Amino acid sequence: MGLVICDIAISVDGFSAGPNQSLEHPMGVGGDQLSRWMFEQPDENAAVIESIVDAGAFIMGRNMFSPGRDDWDEDWTGWWGADPPYHGPVFVLTHYPRDPMLMIGGTTFFFVTDGIESAMTQARAAAGERNVSIAGGANTARQYLKAGLIDELRLHIAPAVLGAGERLFDGVADVKLEQVSSTSSSLVTHVNYRVLH
Amino acid sequence: MGLVICDIAISVDGFSAGPNQSLEHPMGVGGDQLSRWMFEQPDENAAVIESIVDAGAFIMGRNMFSPGRDDWDEDWTGWWGADPPYHGPVFVLTHYPRDPMLMIGGTTFFFVTDGIESAMTQARAAAGERNVSIAGGANTARQYLKAGLIDELRLHIAPAVLGAGERLFDGVADVKLEQVSSTSSSLVTHVNYRVLH
Repeated sequence: MGLVICDIAISVDGFSAGPNQSLEHPMGVGGDQLSRWMFEQPDENAAVIESIVDAGAFIMGRNMFSPGRDDWDEDWTGWWGADPPYHGPVFVLTHYPRDPMLMIGGTTFFFVTDGIESAMTQARAAAGERNVSIAGGANTARQYLKAGLIDELRLHIAPAVLGAGERLFDGVADVKLEQVSSTSSSLVTHVNYRVLH
Repeated sequence: MGLVICDIAISVDGFSAGPNQSLEHPMGVGGDQLSRWMFEQPDENAAVIESIVDAGAFIMGRNMFSPGRDDWDEDWTGWWGADPPYHGPVFVLTHYPRDPMLMIGGTTFFFVTDGIESAMTQARAAAGERNVSIAGGANTARQYLKAGLIDELRLHIAPAVLGAGERLFDGVADVKLEQVSSTSSSLVTHVNYRVLH
C-alpha cells in the first residue's frame, strides 16, 4: 500500500490560503503569493511539481475544486481546464452530490458526500500500490492531519506574510513531525515531514 | 552602518514559544522542541549558531532575559550563567529600571525602559559598523517587525507543532519578504529572509 502524502503551500505566518476565496481569488486575497515558485520558476521546481501529481489518486476539498459554496453550477469543471494535471481519479469532498466527471487526460472527478474516511477508502482502492495525495486546501489537509491519516506532509513555504486566511494548523496540536528533507529555490523552501503515528 | 538581524526559532505552526513561560519552561511548555537542533546538533549547525551571536549589540525582551514579570529579583542574572554567549552589549526591554550588569566575557546587560526605538538607537551606537541583533523573544521580534526596523529575518523552522503559545507574526501583515538562503540539518530548516522596505 502506498503512503498518504499532503503537499501544501504555506506562508511563513502559517496560512495556506488568503481570506475571501472567490472566482477572482481562488487562493484567497494575497494567496497567489504562495504559488509564485510554481508559476515563475517551473524549471527550478520541476522535480517538486512532478512529485505533487505523482499519486494514484487524489482527494481535495470542495473549495479547492470550485469557488461555489452550495448547489453545483453544472458548468463548472474545476480550475484546470479540459486536461487537469492529475491524470487519475480525484475525490472531491462535498455536501452536494454530483455525477462523476471524466476529463481529458485521464482525470476523473468523483464527488464524495459521506466524509473524509469514505473518500480515503475510495482513494486507497483506486490508488492500489501508489500513493494517495491530499491535494488541499487547508481545511481538507487539516481534517486529514487531525484524523491521523497523513503519512508525509510536504510544506512549500513561501516568502510571504498573509496576515489572515486559512491556517493549515488551526486547532491541530497533537501531530509529531520528523523532518525528512529540505530543499529550496529562491521563491520557496520545500520541507518534507514524516508524520509519526 | 550594519544591518538589523533577527534570528528566531519557529514551529511549523508559527509559534516562537510555547504557552506558560516559567522558570521550568523558559521557552514555554513544549517550546524546547524549537531549539533541539542547537543542543543536539551543535556541530552540524555550528555556522548558524556562530552567526546568531555575531553582532555588535543585541536587543531582547524581558521575557527572554527572565522568568520574572514585575519588580526585579536582583539575584537574577539571565539564563546563561556567568559567561553569556553574547560577548557584547545586550539591551533588555523592560518597564522596571535596573543598573547595568557586567558579566564575564564581555557581555553587559543594559536595561532600557523607554521603548524599542530608544533601545535601537543605543544598540546601533554600541554596534558601530557591526550588525544589531534582535535576539527575541516573539513579542520583541514582532514589535520590531511591525516598526519596520528589521532588515533580515532568519527563521529557524523546527519540525514541531506547538498548537499554542506566542505567534511570531501575530498582527503582522504588512511585511514583504525575499528569501535569501535556505539550509537545513535534520532537526531544522534555516531560512533567511530580507525584509523589503
